[in-house]
Amino acid sequence: MALNRLKQAAAHVTGLAGPPYPLDPLSENEIQQAVAIIRKEHSGLFFNAVTLWEPRKAEMMAWVQDPKTTPRPHRVADVVAIGRGSKVYDGIVDLTEGKILNWELTDGVQPLITMEDLQIVETVVRKDPKVIEQCGIIGIPPEDMHKVYCDPWTIGYDERFGSGVRLQQALMYYRPHVDDSQYTYPLDFCPIYNADTQEIIHIDVPPVRRPLNKAAPNNYHAAAIEAEGGFRSDLKPINITQPDGVSFTMDGRIISWQNWKFHIGFNYREGIVLSNITFNDKGAERPTFWRLSLAEMVVPYGNPEHPHQRKHAFDLGEYGGGYMTNSLSLGCDCKGAIHYLDAAFVNRAGDPTTIENAICIHEEDAGILFKHTDFRDNSVTVTRGRKLIISQIFTAANYEYCVYWIFHQDGTIQLEIKLTGILNTYAMLPDEDTKGWGTQVYPGVNAHNHQHLFCLRVDPNVDGPNNTVFQVDATRGAGEVGSAENKYGNAFYAKKTRFETPEQAKSDYNGATSRTWDICNEARVNPYSGKPASYKLVSREVPELLPKEGGLVWKRAGFARHAVHVTKCEFLVLLVSFLAMLSVWLAVSNAHFLDHDSQIHPAGRHVPQTSGEPSMGLPQWIAENPDADITNTDIVLWHTFGLTHFPAPEDFPIMPAEPMSLLLRPRHFFTKNPCLDVPPSYCSVPSGMGKGVGAGLVDGLSRLAFGKEGAEGKKCCGK
Amino acid sequence: MALNRLKQAAAHVTGLAGPPYPLDPLSENEIQQAVAIIRKEHSGLFFNAVTLWEPRKAEMMAWVQDPKTTPRPHRVADVVAIGRGSKVYDGIVDLTEGKILNWELTDGVQPLITMEDLQIVETVVRKDPKVIEQCGIIGIPPEDMHKVYCDPWTIGYDERFGSGVRLQQALMYYRPHVDDSQYTYPLDFCPIYNADTQEIIHIDVPPVRRPLNKAAPNNYHAAAIEAEGGFRSDLKPINITQPDGVSFTMDGRIISWQNWKFHIGFNYREGIVLSNITFNDKGAERPTFWRLSLAEMVVPYGNPEHPHQRKHAFDLGEYGGGYMTNSLSLGCDCKGAIHYLDAAFVNRAGDPTTIENAICIHEEDAGILFKHTDFRDNSVTVTRGRKLIISQIFTAANYEYCVYWIFHQDGTIQLEIKLTGILNTYAMLPDEDTKGWGTQVYPGVNAHNHQHLFCLRVDPNVDGPNNTVFQVDATRGAGEVGSAENKYGNAFYAKKTRFETPEQAKSDYNGATSRTWDICNEARVNPYSGKPASYKLVSREVPELLPKEGGLVWKRAGFARHAVHVTKCEFLVLLVSFLAMLSVWLAVSNAHFLDHDSQIHPAGRHVPQTSGEPSMGLPQWIAENPDADITNTDIVLWHTFGLTHFPAPEDFPIMPAEPMSLLLRPRHFFTKNPCLDVPPSYCSVPSGMGKGVGAGLVDGLSRLAFGKEGAEGKKCCGK
Repeated sequence: MALNRLKQAAAHVTGLAGPPYPLDPLSENEIQQAVAIIRKEHSGLFFNAVTLWEPRKAEMMAWVQDPKTTPRPHRVADVVAIGRGSKVYDGIVDLTEGKILNWELTDGVQPLITMEDLQIVETVVRKDPKVIEQCGIIGIPPEDMHKVYCDPWTIGYDERFGSGVRLQQALMYYRPHVDDSQYTYPLDFCPIYNADTQEIIHIDVPPVRRPLNKAAPNNYHAAAIEAEGGFRSDLKPINITQPDGVSFTMDGRIISWQNWKFHIGFNYREGIVLSNITFNDKGAERPTFWRLSLAEMVVPYGNPEHPHQRKHAFDLGEYGGGYMTNSLSLGCDCKGAIHYLDAAFVNRAGDPTTIENAICIHEEDAGILFKHTDFRDNSVTVTRGRKLIISQIFTAANYEYCVYWIFHQDGTIQLEIKLTGILNTYAMLPDEDTKGWGTQVYPGVNAHNHQHLFCLRVDPNVDGPNNTVFQVDATRGAGEVGSAENKYGNAFYAKKTRFETPEQAKSDYNGATSRTWDICNEARVNPYSGKPASYKLVSREVPELLPKEGGLVWKRAGFARHAVHVTKCEFLVLLVSFLAMLSVWLAVSNAHFLDHDSQIHPAGRHVPQTSGEPSMGLPQWIAENPDADITNTDIVLWHTFGLTHFPAPEDFPIMPAEPMSLLLRPRHFFTKNPCLDVPPSYCSVPSGMGKGVGAGLVDGLSRLAFGKEGAEGKKCCGK
Repeated sequence: MALNRLKQAAAHVTGLAGPPYPLDPLSENEIQQAVAIIRKEHSGLFFNAVTLWEPRKAEMMAWVQDPKTTPRPHRVADVVAIGRGSKVYDGIVDLTEGKILNWELTDGVQPLITMEDLQIVETVVRKDPKVIEQCGIIGIPPEDMHKVYCDPWTIGYDERFGSGVRLQQALMYYRPHVDDSQYTYPLDFCPIYNADTQEIIHIDVPPVRRPLNKAAPNNYHAAAIEAEGGFRSDLKPINITQPDGVSFTMDGRIISWQNWKFHIGFNYREGIVLSNITFNDKGAERPTFWRLSLAEMVVPYGNPEHPHQRKHAFDLGEYGGGYMTNSLSLGCDCKGAIHYLDAAFVNRAGDPTTIENAICIHEEDAGILFKHTDFRDNSVTVTRGRKLIISQIFTAANYEYCVYWIFHQDGTIQLEIKLTGILNTYAMLPDEDTKGWGTQVYPGVNAHNHQHLFCLRVDPNVDGPNNTVFQVDATRGAGEVGSAENKYGNAFYAKKTRFETPEQAKSDYNGATSRTWDICNEARVNPYSGKPASYKLVSREVPELLPKEGGLVWKRAGFARHAVHVTKCEFLVLLVSFLAMLSVWLAVSNAHFLDHDSQIHPAGRHVPQTSGEPSMGLPQWIAENPDADITNTDIVLWHTFGLTHFPAPEDFPIMPAEPMSLLLRPRHFFTKNPCLDVPPSYCSVPSGMGKGVGAGLVDGLSRLAFGKEGAEGKKCCGK
């Protein structure tokens, strides 16, 4: 095993391994290859994205089932490029065959803004005479323009400028010193940047001006803390070590751990993508989910004053959760034995570029997994749990999103997101009324109300691809108090509503009934409970989309209108063999937008500057066939969750991480607790009590904080 | 400091310390003393409880503020004893003065069932001829009666037997072998036990009989797992060590950690009680909460068939969360450097008895506390968090509740509860229809639907005792889409509803508006935000009480009718000095039931066999003065939260821990993030980027899981 690992590690570095797994992200070599193939036929392009065009589900499932006789899926690149005049090209390049399968000019769309696109704006802004003029009005002299900064956002959508020209809005800031946090010094005007001409085409200036904030800097960097009295010195170290290494193995990007097995993908949009997730149930590798990802998010701000309505970032669709990912090479964000994966992307010039240590894979202790004590004799079994965490952190301008995909030994998958980073801020006058749309978190700093709404894409595979979704509500039984059927009024049950069409499946959260959603395989009935094998979505942070129906955000972020949507993922059976697929491609040049495997992005493939008329993505797909039969078939469940944030001074100048979590829990999937064979930390049984036998393992490393007999360092449990 | 600790530790063991802190639980000596004082005047008693009669809030607050000149609160014992003929005595004994302050016979109540009360029943049941007869009917021969077990529960309330006689219901089980889990073999009948006469007075027999389950045992103990293939061997150790010890100090039972300071109490009912919780805000010790505890809970089961309506355990009020607490001396349930506190109680005979290591105090790494990367240059600050955990685990017959009071560095208090242990089960016939009231989790085993509803008692002290509660709902702004005030429809704000009377403050959860409740000090306005200093209750697992209005559980568990209740906690100013208090005692023998400091138990002081007519506890207190002014005054907030559990086979034979969590978060309490001075694990600033300076600490212990160059063990971050 160790030798195997060395080989893999070496192969990973040298690139001498066999062919990549079909779901592996494109390597630097493959990105180069794709660009070269395109350049043979097309010139004058800036590259926006070159990413894996994932093998279609039917083709991939067939290959997974029988890789020896099924043709290996080709390596195919999904390309977005931008030509002169903001022309957008969508292309599909077969790397295995070395040829372009599809290349089309797509009108009226704007691909996402890359980090390179962002970086340019600040330079342009600082030199623009009209920006310099505006800076002067609020108290920044021309010689201080190097102290002016901007966070360039996509413009969202502004009806004055439409979708034809590639635009960004520059949220303006100032730094008295280069190391000062700029969010203490928001400026009150907002330049609009044309990415094609690289110039400022307009500045939104508010009717009431707000001079540059005169408050002292409010920093969190080490020098600032030292100046304010220094760091606290009373934290003793907690060391977390794994002397024997990790409990998982990697075969390329396929990880195996505690009966779980799955592929870890990554792309520029969604970041981490987990595919073909199976759980080994006493020797049977049972499928659970075909593909899990965070597919989109939107952060609407609640201030109706112009132009703040434009602040509703789609951080994945407009910037890319992969592109914005932190390299963890500069500091361990996790503890213990860590395995990292890099992420390769294309840059604007068409060259490959890599974020080192983009994905972190590690284990953590998970506290008590289960425990029971018999009150009669204190015989007890207590077993500690372990969890596996696949994580990434991405920085969306001011904010940080820490995404943790957590696997538990009991078959549960948890998605935890921690929000940290810095509030988006806007200037305010002394004693200005925020009108309830924001909070003064520091003198002169208005942090607007906002929501963080994430869209989890769940492509289930619960004992196979044919699944059905039920809404489950805890519900009072029939019969009034005193009736024969419910004399004491205590009857309650799980009311299940079967989702039969996408239209009917549009469903909201109900906290009062502890609403959950079951993803079931109705053909696989649990032999004990008589209920279908299922995974239950348990999610409790599910606010409504607060922007109103018919408004800008409501139109653009259709996925956020309901907590759950379900769509049908129809196989095009013709696509199963690659030759057949190719013929389809040739026949239908638009095919990759039409086939259901491409229904990945619930706010559309190209999100910036969509007007929401019509709403792209999810509402469009559902409208195409609102009455499709979504029972016992291949479906996708879309879940929007998140939180509403009314800022407070505690969140500034940097926000303590706020966690949020949801679970996918197996219910009626197993016939018993699937982790009974995890070694207990202590186990005794009635027949052994008082006989000094039956005691199992204890943690020999833990010790008493203060020695009971006055001697420090005594081990716990008298061991 | 180390010497100080040694002294404390030694004093703790030898009992040679000065007087106990007024909030400390009674020691074994004090319990003995209380019993001796009572025995001088009363005989023939069994002791049910001898616990600290906590100093009244006004008296204690006065003493805390000025301990040198204020009289030290006396040590006083709160006593419940049972005399012949189920006579219940409530008494108050002044240990400092050595005399009984109050002693009364309380009619028509039944104190909680102690572990000793429970232990007796099984012996009686096994010998009872009618029970033996019933066992015979379902297939257990008389010679196997030693294989018959019961979990004795309070009877709850059964109108056939009323409240006058002390009763238990025996939930019956069978073990083929002494080490087998009995919950696989529930029996179908239910004997009623008279605790006074120690005999079975009735047996509830269902109309349809269910013979003893013939299924094979379903066990989780080590021998069973070994027999089924053994334990998994692929878990490598994760070692958590604290070589320099813990970061907290203890002064008696007062803990100081990361600006937090509070007293850790414990009693037989609530278990852990945290008092006088303050946060040191740059030198100022600011009060946050006067007293926090889990005050009550109820576990209603949802099967309306007789006599299952009686299954609705009030685990704290009917059994005692302290009495049922696990001793952690037999196994470390936490990792690292642990400090334990013991818990002393009285036993039935009046002798003191101690649960060793009842409370566990330890720290854990808490992951990222905050992080921000500047996308321009990748300058970054990342700081890891730490948490302090005060925990206990109690076993309520079949179930385990793990209670974690978690303190965060950012001023947040988290209450996490993990549910584990074993489902309560009932017998079922092959192919019997559970009618939706339960689930067959194993052949012949029906686990009924149930709720776990906890009542958190919050006695706030947010910058002082005069607080006000607001309900907060995320709400859409006025103005339709297209209107001048809300053109794009994106306006939203935090709608605040001020609670002015207990009647108006009865409030339910609303998941759609992400409802929270703010506990505010309206006199302490945040200088930046202009909003009152507050702590926000953020709780997302808040199901409705499913038993119907007017039914048995609804009547008995009044606290569970709403998510939040607020009551007024009126000081009786006369009580401030002890002499004055004494005179009140003499004047009003019932005083300790009347004064508001005694409003601790929201389902009543004596819970077993209450009929709910009238509802005891919270509904009673509110009905006494529904229109009391609860603004800017001393209040108590009662929060009912929990979950609804529809069992599945995965939960059996022992349930993987299911966690649930709520937060008390400071909002507008601080003027900035209060944990900026936690040392970062990495910090660089723009001015230092590329110059090789500015890098702070990294975790030198973490390492790569698989060496990048093929060599294992390489440290992370190239250090």
